[in-house]
This record gives sequence, structure tokens and C-alpha cells, in this order.
Amino acid sequence: MKQSKLFGKTIREAPKDEPSKNAQLLIRGGFVDKVMAGVYTYLPLGLITLRKIENIIREEMNAIGGQEILMPALQNKKDWETTGRWDIDVMMKIKTSYDKEFGLGWTHEEVVTPLAKKYIKSYKEFPFYLYQIQNKFRNEPRAKSGILRGREFSMKDLYSFHTSEEDLNKYYEIAKDAYFKIFDRVGIKDKTYLTYASGGDFSKYSHEFQTITSAGEDTIYICDKCEVAVNEEIVENNQPECPECRNKKLRKEKAIETGNIFKLKDRFSRPFNFKYLDQNGKEQLVLMGCYGLGSSRLLGTIVELHNDENGIIWPESVAPFAVHLIKIGKSEEVNKQAEEIYRNCLDKNIEILFDDCDESAGVKFKDADLIGIPTRILISEKTLSNNCVEVKRRESGEVEMVKISEIAKVLNC
Amino acid sequence: MKQSKLFGKTIREAPKDEPSKNAQLLIRGGFVDKVMAGVYTYLPLGLITLRKIENIIREEMNAIGGQEILMPALQNKKDWETTGRWDIDVMMKIKTSYDKEFGLGWTHEEVVTPLAKKYIKSYKEFPFYLYQIQNKFRNEPRAKSGILRGREFSMKDLYSFHTSEEDLNKYYEIAKDAYFKIFDRVGIKDKTYLTYASGGDFSKYSHEFQTITSAGEDTIYICDKCEVAVNEEIVENNQPECPECRNKKLRKEKAIETGNIFKLKDRFSRPFNFKYLDQNGKEQLVLMGCYGLGSSRLLGTIVELHNDENGIIWPESVAPFAVHLIKIGKSEEVNKQAEEIYRNCLDKNIEILFDDCDESAGVKFKDADLIGIPTRILISEKTLSNNCVEVKRRESGEVEMVKISEIAKVLNC
Repeated sequence: MKQSKLFGKTIREAPKDEPSKNAQLLIRGGFVDKVMAGVYTYLPLGLITLRKIENIIREEMNAIGGQEILMPALQNKKDWETTGRWDIDVMMKIKTSYDKEFGLGWTHEEVVTPLAKKYIKSYKEFPFYLYQIQNKFRNEPRAKSGILRGREFSMKDLYSFHTSEEDLNKYYEIAKDAYFKIFDRVGIKDKTYLTYASGGDFSKYSHEFQTITSAGEDTIYICDKCEVAVNEEIVENNQPECPECRNKKLRKEKAIETGNIFKLKDRFSRPFNFKYLDQNGKEQLVLMGCYGLGSSRLLGTIVELHNDENGIIWPESVAPFAVHLIKIGKSEEVNKQAEEIYRNCLDKNIEILFDDCDESAGVKFKDADLIGIPTRILISEKTLSNNCVEVKRRESGEVEMVKISEIAKVLNC
Repeated sequence: MKQSKLFGKTIREAPKDEPSKNAQLLIRGGFVDKVMAGVYTYLPLGLITLRKIENIIREEMNAIGGQEILMPALQNKKDWETTGRWDIDVMMKIKTSYDKEFGLGWTHEEVVTPLAKKYIKSYKEFPFYLYQIQNKFRNEPRAKSGILRGREFSMKDLYSFHTSEEDLNKYYEIAKDAYFKIFDRVGIKDKTYLTYASGGDFSKYSHEFQTITSAGEDTIYICDKCEVAVNEEIVENNQPECPECRNKKLRKEKAIETGNIFKLKDRFSRPFNFKYLDQNGKEQLVLMGCYGLGSSRLLGTIVELHNDENGIIWPESVAPFAVHLIKIGKSEEVNKQAEEIYRNCLDKNIEILFDDCDESAGVKFKDADLIGIPTRILISEKTLSNNCVEVKRRESGEVEMVKISEIAKVLNC
């Protein structure tokens, strides 16, 4: 893509009404625009990045047998009354002119349980796993963490259905592993801990995935031996201890909940009377698990973790482009060679942003740092005098002069 | 994909509470599930199909310079008051516990205009084109046309920005052509007419794209000479006439509005005071166009047009799978050969659904017809006795026996 045509300019000054670092950097880099507190538009660069994150999540969900569906945002009051959750504060509600009330989904147990009940009758059809990547809504009185906590946000929610606790437990571990694969692929695994949290009515603990960042709203206590953590919410009056090794020397950190998984058991199958026929022809309640992961929150978390004073430093897996080609000067030779490199990259399916704008070198370098693409290729009369381009890595700052004929080699293609 | 694992069974009987043919066929084929009137869940087969349609739209929007963004569903009351549209009935509204009111977007001029205003200042930055594919909401007291008119639905909306009417007019024609390319690719072009409709306050006419179907809510009058139509809404008390050739012998048809395009001119730039600096440094109002196309409505329209008494007949471009492999019988040889064909297709990236279920031939054929995949490959002991499979085309009903070694040839790969 040519940068002169790209909608969404970089902004030099951090917006004053935006306290969070992730949103500041994303706004300054031209990734998102703030419509109102907790509500953002994804500009072209931001949407490419969000879709890359969603695709990584999708691949890992498919790899553990997940089938993708798409449930509606509009929620049926009746189904939420069935589970006793219609009046929970986080639900945004719509009262229509024709006197019908809808909710806006912040989770989808009340949709997926009646859905599965319609189609599944026999033990032979278990287990199965349904997920979606969909925009959710939450009533947030104070939305001030940028895209870490939006009023409208993209989320992946997976639901698993089982005929035994053993099978639920087994899949729960498989899902846990898939989550760490996702965190690894998007570059936040080394800061992310499986965290013991409140289990609600049905089990002692649930599990969260907490990623250490000063922007986090939670406090966790990490056991560096077991590499797990405890959420402050379940630390009783005494000293926190590791639920696995009982170690009491835990490290306290601020963290953001990037995912959570939960053994629902029959919490939802019971009110909806979702039963199957077992091998003896007897009716049994279905057991369920749910597995949430905020895709836009993941985007914000990546930015919180990967930046420096000059802007974002995207991990390669989610960068909007792999290469940022920057042309300095307007001589015919520079134009010609830059266009050729650009075309060659496009031909090889290398994702490339070509800064063909009419700006000074200083402005272009500042822009490039804000946008944060992993590899920058600079072409100018000076580099061309040696038949070279300058290749700079955003993360390491490493610079090398590379012969034009050798560019493909440096880009690993 | 193996059908035994696929979530969403076919249903023999049409649901009684669903009057529309498109939703009946989509529900019976296991493509969608009705949550409530005008609100549907996309099951795996339906979501694949919807995404294919969205991707065709995306490709054609990119081809005419569109840049994809993603605006929020949550709408700012203030911006809709600016244009005087806050109180239009189709807007669903949310009143939160903290006394803030939001709307749910049914169109996005009130978001895209202030957005563009933030980033664009000079005539040099024009023209530009922004679009999104996003879920919209509409207050529909009676939602009874299946996915043709949902309360929540997927839509593509493109907005163009210009400095002169000439430029707007030029792009308007380009967009028109892109729409016909889309209709052609999804298989409804021969039933779709550019239709003159009411232009609102700012021009004599706007243009709709109307697709002939008995499920349509509109009445149009077609001039077969000019291949355009007139919407009944602008036919005055006298006889309808062709706006192009003045022909009065028009053909009356029921039709569904699959798209609309509109020269907004300064309808939205004026209230938002969206101006640019022209070549003389003088402020001028921006001129805009908008171009809507319902992706889920397109899905419904395709189904209304492509079906027979046994189910849906998908055009190849949007079919959930290219090939439906059906195994009859359980002998080792049938299993082995079927698995091999399945693996070979996957290796060649042929999209294949493999009916490996334990059902009778009659049930499987009925299922296959309901699902409507273009090419069916039947393998059984009988076909294998000749080293063959039976290949049947869903649309023509054409059947041929094909040597197993020749399957690739028949599938054009």
C-alpha cells in the first residue's frame, strides 16, 4: 500500500482526553480513532492488525476442534430471565417503540445453550465445541483504559459441551494450552500467567490469563517456581500463597485479564433443561465449559508491552505490514528504484507499506517509528550511490546496508 | 470437513414460524438458526457462505480504491442531533444506568463525516473512499422476510469524498459498475436492475439496485430496452415511464432492494462543517457519496433466486464447499477410497464436505440437495465395482460415472 493514499495520519502529540498508553499510541500511529469513551473506529492500519490477531485466535480454535459460528448481538429478554441474568448491570438494553426489549450481548451462554439444545440429542454427538469472534457490548460507566476495556469490543468466545466431567476437564486443559499458543504467537506469552481466580458457585477456582502491565486493572501474586499466579480477589485476609506449591514468596504485579476459562458444568444446561440421551436411553444434563479471549483487548495489551518512547514496536506476527519502504528525495533514480522494490515485494506477497509521501526525512522517520513496522527499508540518493538500501529493524535498532540485489535475502523470501 | 462433526443438522420440515422462503431454506439446510424475528445465528455452513459474499464485496470495493475501516455500532447522540436524525424511528436506542444515551448504527454518515474531518484538510488529499463491512441494527416492528430484512444484519457501506461534482459523478458511475460486478459474481445479475428511486432533498433521483423476486417488498417497472427500472414510489398518478427513453411499456415486477447509491453532496459535510482548503487557500465544503449493499440480504436474495423444491442450489462463487463427497455403505474398500478422495481434495485445497455419516442413501441424498453444494461425488460398492464414482451437478442434475483416477480432471484441478 502507498502511504500517500493511506487514510489515517500519524499524530505528533498524544491526545489530551485519552489517559491510556495503548490508545494514545494507537491513535498517534493512525490505527484507531476515538469516537467516545470506550468506543473506537479502526482505521485501515488498525483493522489489518486486529484481523491478524483474530486470525491467529481462529487458527488455534480450529486446531482444537472449534467450529466457528456467529451469534447475534441482540439478545432475547426471555432467555436471560431463564438464567436469572437479565438484570446484571453490564447489559446494555434497548426499549423499542413497539414495546419489545432487547439486550446487547456481553457473553453468549444464553444464546449458545438453547441453540445447541435444538440440534443435539444423543451422547453420540458429544463432545463438540462452538466459538465465534464477534463484537460484544458492556455497560461501562467509566471507560478509561483505551481499547483494553471498551463499551464495544471484539471478543472470541468458545463453548464446549460434554457428557462427563472427565471429558470437560480434559478439554479444559487442551483449551489452556491453546491459549498459551495464542499468547506466544502474538508476543505476550512471557508476561502472561495462568491465574487462579474466583470460581463462582460451582468450583473452587476459575482460571484467568493475566498479562503483566502497569495499565492492568487487576493485582496478581506470581509464584515464579510454578509460573502461576493468584488474583488478589481470592487472597483472603492472610498472606497470599501459591495454590500449587503453597509457596508464600509471591511477586505482586499489576496485570490485565487477557483471557478466562471456566467450567460451567450444568450452570446453563440446567435452566434451559438441555439434556441428552445416554447409552442407556436415560436423560442427562449436558456439562459445559466457556473460554473467553478479547481480541481487541489483546491488541491493546500487545501495544502496552511492545513500545518505546518513539511509538509501537509490532511483533512480526501481528504487524500491519512486514516492511516499511521509505523513499527520501525525488530524483528520477530514487523514484524508479523505490517503485521497483515496491513492485517486487508485492509480486512476492510481502506485505509492504511504501512511504512515497513528499515529506522530509525527519518526518518520515518519526512516522515510521510511530507506526512500528518491524523492518524499515530506506532508499535515497546516498544509499543508491552504493547500489544499496539501508535496512533497519524497529525492535533492535540494528542497521545494515544491503545491496539492492540482495534485498530478498534479508527479507527471508 | 467431515459432516459427522459438522454442527447444524438439516431439518426435513419447514419451520412453521418462518414465513420467508430464504430463511426456510437456510434453516432447513443448517445454515442459520432463528433466535427471534429478524435475528439469526449463522451456523458453520452459513458463516462460510456469508464470509464468501463479504469477500467478493471486499475485493470489488478494494478494486475501486476503497479503504476498509471498522466503525462502531454504538452511536453518539450528539452527532445524530447535529444532522437532525436522532429521532428517526429506525434507530434502536440504549439508555444506560449512568444516564448516557447511545444509538445503534443503521448507517454511518454521522461517524464517517467527523472522522474524515479530523484527518483531511487539503484539496490534495482528495478524493478518498472509506468502507466497512459491519453489523447494523434497525428497529423493525415486523421482521418477517427472513434474512432479507433483519433487525441485525451485515452490510457494506462505502463513503466517497470529493472536491467537485464532476469528480463525485465520475466515481458514482465507477461504483455503479462495481455493484454490477458483485451481482454478477454472486449469480444475481440477470435479475438485478438499476432502478430510479426518490432522490430526497438534493437530487431528482437516487439509484437503487433491485433484484426481481416474489419475496421482494418493492414494486418496480422495468424498461427492457434500456435495462433500467423505476421504483413505484416515484411513479406519479399517471402511467410509469422509463426515465431514459420515455418508453411507457414497462414490465411490473416484485423486487428486493439489494443495494443503493446516493449523491449526498453536502448533506452531511454542511452540518459537520467539513471543509477543505482549495488551491487558492479558500475553504470549501466537501462533497460526498454513499453506497450501501447488504451482505446478509445478498445471501438471502441468492437463496430466493437459486433453489428448487429440494433445497438450495448455490452458485459456485459463494457455495460453502465446492464438492460434497457422499459415502454409501461401510465396507473397508468404500471407507478407504472415500478417505483417499477426501485427503486428495484437501491436499489440493478443494473445499470439500465429506458425508461420512451412518445414514441411508435416501437420507444422504435429501441432505445433499438441501445443502445445495454444486458438485456431488457419490462413492459406493456399486460405483467401486467399476473403479468409479458418480459425479452429479446440483444445478443441471447431470450425472456421469468417472474413473477414480480421473476425479481431479472433472473437478478442474
